[in-house]
Amino acid sequence: MKLQVAIDRKSLAETTKLVQLLDGKADIIEFGTSLVKDFGMQSLQKISNKIKESQILYDIKTYDEGAYEFESGFNYGADYLTVIGSASEKTIALCNDQTSNKKKMMIDLTDVPAAQVAKIAGYSQAIYLIHHNNDSSTKQDLIQMVEQFHQNHPNIENLAVAGGIDLKAAQKLRQQELVDIIVVGGAITQAVAPLNELQKFIRVIKGH
Amino acid sequence: MKLQVAIDRKSLAETTKLVQLLDGKADIIEFGTSLVKDFGMQSLQKISNKIKESQILYDIKTYDEGAYEFESGFNYGADYLTVIGSASEKTIALCNDQTSNKKKMMIDLTDVPAAQVAKIAGYSQAIYLIHHNNDSSTKQDLIQMVEQFHQNHPNIENLAVAGGIDLKAAQKLRQQELVDIIVVGGAITQAVAPLNELQKFIRVIKGH
Repeated sequence: MKLQVAIDRKSLAETTKLVQLLDGKADIIEFGTSLVKDFGMQSLQKISNKIKESQILYDIKTYDEGAYEFESGFNYGADYLTVIGSASEKTIALCNDQTSNKKKMMIDLTDVPAAQVAKIAGYSQAIYLIHHNNDSSTKQDLIQMVEQFHQNHPNIENLAVAGGIDLKAAQKLRQQELVDIIVVGGAITQAVAPLNELQKFIRVIKGH
Repeated sequence: MKLQVAIDRKSLAETTKLVQLLDGKADIIEFGTSLVKDFGMQSLQKISNKIKESQILYDIKTYDEGAYEFESGFNYGADYLTVIGSASEKTIALCNDQTSNKKKMMIDLTDVPAAQVAKIAGYSQAIYLIHHNNDSSTKQDLIQMVEQFHQNHPNIENLAVAGGIDLKAAQKLRQQELVDIIVVGGAITQAVAPLNELQKFIRVIKGH
């Protein structure tokens, strides 16, 4: 099980510090949508270039212009890029055309109905991200969401999950053994001592 | 009827040149999604700050985090920001909360079914963008799309239209008298002589 740490709503200086702290400890370092839109991938690459061990994800949330955006994002140094699951099937196919064994597509399923998921379920190399809507005022049970998703789509193998994950949720997700990647944001990046929190998550997820 | 000119897939230097050429001639200068994601709004603001007369749109295509993204985009100097019509109703409402008489929301309706449009049709100050999917291989008739949209949603007043508009389409849209804003991209920005093409569009749209 992999730990992805998402950095959002930070300055470039704060992002640089967090990245130094996360490199080699988080499996995947995510540059969140807020960083992409505020500062752009060209600026983010100056930071991600210095990452030695962790993999790099830009949360670009492509909705149209799939070929251009995925080509651009991989050129700017990403190992993973995101596309919105409610984008057109054609757009998702064009994103997928830009991927390889080392450059992967993560499909963000925030608010995507099961019928639409079924239509885009055939990308065996893609990661399917079960994502709690950040703007929703009702708190959803992520463990239940994952269970339900797995029942609806038993053939989808590569699952990730995101949205307000704390240590307790991480522990349950590990026991559940359905997702490959857990995305943690504020619980680490907003902590008073991010390194301490990071290590707690690593212990819970990796058992060491 | 207003002319919005969209700049996409250009370097910052090329964008600066185009903006100088467009300022005061295009009603709205759009910094396209490709520019937002490649360079970020912080870099784009250095260019848009120099715009004296035209209004400024950043095509940020918000899908989640509506409050953060719209607050950020308006702070970086936008007069208009875009949200994806298939975002959650809550996200669109949060975007709308950040708007004012001078700071407006444009809802991008690419691939949004009529039933979903009906749910978000009540924002009287918003602009509803009828948008041909750029990744679609079939060419849709924009004039017909606008007519159909108007029949489905007669109460929506502020309409814009985008997607491969050439001079002929602009002329028909003007005669149709249903849209307030015509978005032109490559027909101007990719032209050998962009200023010439711009002036042709102005003649067609404004009649002078």
